[in-house]
Amino acid sequence: MKIYGDIQSGNCYKVKLLTSLLDIDHEWIEVDILASETQTESYLTKNPNGKIPLLELDDGTFISESNAILNYLASETSLVGTCRFTVAKVLQWQFFEQYSHEPFIAVARFIAKYLGLPEDRKSEYKAKQLGGHKALKVMEEQLQCTPYLVGSELTIADISLYGYTHVADEGGFDLSEYPSIQQWIARIQANPKYIGME
Amino acid sequence: MKIYGDIQSGNCYKVKLLTSLLDIDHEWIEVDILASETQTESYLTKNPNGKIPLLELDDGTFISESNAILNYLASETSLVGTCRFTVAKVLQWQFFEQYSHEPFIAVARFIAKYLGLPEDRKSEYKAKQLGGHKALKVMEEQLQCTPYLVGSELTIADISLYGYTHVADEGGFDLSEYPSIQQWIARIQANPKYIGME
Repeated sequence: MKIYGDIQSGNCYKVKLLTSLLDIDHEWIEVDILASETQTESYLTKNPNGKIPLLELDDGTFISESNAILNYLASETSLVGTCRFTVAKVLQWQFFEQYSHEPFIAVARFIAKYLGLPEDRKSEYKAKQLGGHKALKVMEEQLQCTPYLVGSELTIADISLYGYTHVADEGGFDLSEYPSIQQWIARIQANPKYIGME
Repeated sequence: MKIYGDIQSGNCYKVKLLTSLLDIDHEWIEVDILASETQTESYLTKNPNGKIPLLELDDGTFISESNAILNYLASETSLVGTCRFTVAKVLQWQFFEQYSHEPFIAVARFIAKYLGLPEDRKSEYKAKQLGGHKALKVMEEQLQCTPYLVGSELTIADISLYGYTHVADEGGFDLSEYPSIQQWIARIQANPKYIGME
């Protein structure tokens, strides 16, 4: 199994973190997005959408989209949920992550950390703050009630949301406003098989 | 089972279409987004993220995110995929839909159809065209190889992508450039239990 990714990307780091938690053997192939390595003809035959992470199975087939990869890798474990309802709730949080969280928090972080907050992206950066805080409030509300997003146990929903939430400060989001999120971050980091982004 | 939605929204229509294909009894509760009915205190207790569609189960619990709802409703059928790999490919296309398709095609349609393409949204509308065509090209490439997105059979990946693709012309996307997508649309519409958006 090969995984194409950039460890500084939260979407890729999610997958890396899960391989550590589940002891999944794999070859990690580092891909440089800023050098447009996802847009080469060779890469586009692997993933026509030109994005990372990308999972290559031993039979040469591919699965893209970070959250689909998490579901594939965790598919025979309790991390995907343990009944029809919790499986759906895990997916609910993962779709929330891709639509209501990542486009704000990850993009703000990208503009600030990777691009150095250039003048012509400042208004976009500022606009991302509102949506990012909205997403963090939704998470905080849930985490006030349950230790993990879908209840009392860790699932891949937590891994999905953890990816960019734990580095949200790099996108200008002050997590001290969100005590339950901070406790949830500490809970995840206490896992003996936890690995960090760097 | 209750479903809160606006039938003109592709995200809600997906769910409606699946209930028809699977003969799922439900009460449809029409919600007016433009009148901010998703932002009332009462609605936000149902879905803190303030979005539709929303599924309310008979025990009073809720599932949000259109694609999570599709997975829940279809969970005991072949529409979610029939093996570990195809289940992951279905999810791959659904995450693609929410990240790389809907934010371009649905938003362009919203600006044109619901808002009447006002002057101050014209540059945003124009910017959405590029990403929308990129997503359509990725779909076209797959549908040149297989009749449905994940192979020879209909899955909820098709229902997810069909939602906004079949009305993409309302967002300014000319589907005559995409013959395989057009054939796929006709294939879905030929299902005897198919229902349209209106």
